Amino acid sequence: MSDLAGAIRTGDRRALSRGITLVESTRPVDRPDAEALLDDLLPGTGGAVRVGISGAPGAGKSTLIEALGGMLVADGARVGVLAVDPSSTRSGGSILGDRTRMEALSRNPAAYIRPTPSGGTLGGVARRTREAMLLIEAWGAEVVLIETVGVGQSEVGVAHMVDQFVLLVSPGGGDELQGIKRGVMELADVIAVNKADGDLAAAADRARGEYAAAAHLLRPRHAGLATPVLACSAREGDGLDQLWAAVTERHRALEDDGRLGKLRTAQAQEWFWSEVRDGLLSEIDRDPAAAGLADRLEREVVAGTSLPPAAAREVVSALRERPSAG
Amino acid sequence: MSDLAGAIRTGDRRALSRGITLVESTRPVDRPDAEALLDDLLPGTGGAVRVGISGAPGAGKSTLIEALGGMLVADGARVGVLAVDPSSTRSGGSILGDRTRMEALSRNPAAYIRPTPSGGTLGGVARRTREAMLLIEAWGAEVVLIETVGVGQSEVGVAHMVDQFVLLVSPGGGDELQGIKRGVMELADVIAVNKADGDLAAAADRARGEYAAAAHLLRPRHAGLATPVLACSAREGDGLDQLWAAVTERHRALEDDGRLGKLRTAQAQEWFWSEVRDGLLSEIDRDPAAAGLADRLEREVVAGTSLPPAAAREVVSALRERPSAG
Repeated sequence: MSDLAGAIRTGDRRALSRGITLVESTRPVDRPDAEALLDDLLPGTGGAVRVGISGAPGAGKSTLIEALGGMLVADGARVGVLAVDPSSTRSGGSILGDRTRMEALSRNPAAYIRPTPSGGTLGGVARRTREAMLLIEAWGAEVVLIETVGVGQSEVGVAHMVDQFVLLVSPGGGDELQGIKRGVMELADVIAVNKADGDLAAAADRARGEYAAAAHLLRPRHAGLATPVLACSAREGDGLDQLWAAVTERHRALEDDGRLGKLRTAQAQEWFWSEVRDGLLSEIDRDPAAAGLADRLEREVVAGTSLPPAAAREVVSALRERPSAG
Repeated sequence: MSDLAGAIRTGDRRALSRGITLVESTRPVDRPDAEALLDDLLPGTGGAVRVGISGAPGAGKSTLIEALGGMLVADGARVGVLAVDPSSTRSGGSILGDRTRMEALSRNPAAYIRPTPSGGTLGGVARRTREAMLLIEAWGAEVVLIETVGVGQSEVGVAHMVDQFVLLVSPGGGDELQGIKRGVMELADVIAVNKADGDLAAAADRARGEYAAAAHLLRPRHAGLATPVLACSAREGDGLDQLWAAVTERHRALEDDGRLGKLRTAQAQEWFWSEVRDGLLSEIDRDPAAAGLADRLEREVVAGTSLPPAAAREVVSALRERPSAG
């Protein structure tokens, strides 16, 4: 593992890929190696600006990331991209898919693009994405962009692991937004209306106004930092510098007054306790008696014949009264 | 307990108060009686329209509930009101406070008003409020109104136990809304702009337009059921019938197509599993060794010297390898 860790530290993209494949592995036998690798690399993590980028399908997320990433690497930054892909498996298929989606960027040695599988076990998505992000930071990325399709639960998970959350929308406004899960808009630190070019320029400006009005109705995510609403064209590359300026300006503000540190501390604690919760819940599945009891009681709760607190206490006792099987 | 249950079933308000005090008790010795009572009454629950009413301080929630509740009892309904009061203790103080806040309604024998304490133990708030709601349904309420101040975590908890969530806002719009926690607006099934009377009538209408535009940017909570945005005057009693019509119309629609049943099933499952999670987590506190380990590892996680998944697994093993202290 320490060889792999060393190779990742030197900025070897193929080593990084091997490392992420290892931490993504769901085979229990791989877990000790994965955690040895992560422990080894942990001191070199935390240095990147962590940015979530969400938007409905068709909002132009990949085009934006291709353009924004290209701009950042041209400025000398090393950039990692994680695409939370509900459809992706750990097979290569969707990696190739992503390669073709962000072709130029993926060929740039200063960039690393990787789909991160969603779905799967309790907290698994968030864990794998978080760990992949740490490896990318150890690899030397100054910026990590985490792309999520704004239709699932993944946004909330991603919002808990990034410093800034950018919501990308289409000029059509509300109609496209129907595709965005409720709550996603309120996660946004920055809202960008894409496709502000050609025939859509006017519509984009109108949409920008609508979103600015809506954002005004929401309490800013960080007190004193209003939510900027910008127009941009990922295709033409217009407005990306303003978008990035807005992100970095917020980042610096949070860094300077110590809120970034507090945010990351809170995220680490939340990650720890969510892993504890998930770990305890999966003990139920690993204990056939407790699992069977939980199934029966859940049915009774649904049928309205059992009260959840009492039913839950039965499950907890069943698990506590017997020491671990494994 | 069965006497108390019987008295509650007959619509005795003082018995209902005694029952709620019992289920709210944090003394472990009271818990068996509380659950015996709830088990006894469970078959008579679930019949009410469960409505959450949230809004920033000053939005006029109490005035609205006083007026709306009065209208509903005048129509022959029995109405229960639970006010999630962050400041309330189980001392009588804040009950009196509420009495004075909703004086006329509280004197009406067909109405029952009760503050429900927030704060306290893991999941405790939600549990006590849910159980109080069940007792109020067993008492015969056709409508349960749960008031929350839109500044805390309570809204999310309440949204998970009601059928409809009404957000009450002031004509001032954004400025008052600064007081509302992010995400609360997206919980809303119905948005009502209050104080649409006198000098504020015009401002209220403007605000109604702003909120309607913002609501249009959010995906409806239930597909095919847009989020109505209404203006009303709780003080003058104007628009309350339209507000209630909007709530009941949505309720009937969800009932007719079976979504209400699915919603309540999901809420019961979610309640059960959150109780299981909280119960398992509190086992850590009850086990000094595990609690100490968790504290130490949490500090290491925050310091960046331990990886949350590995640290969490240590805590889970520590708990699993020793049977319950009892």
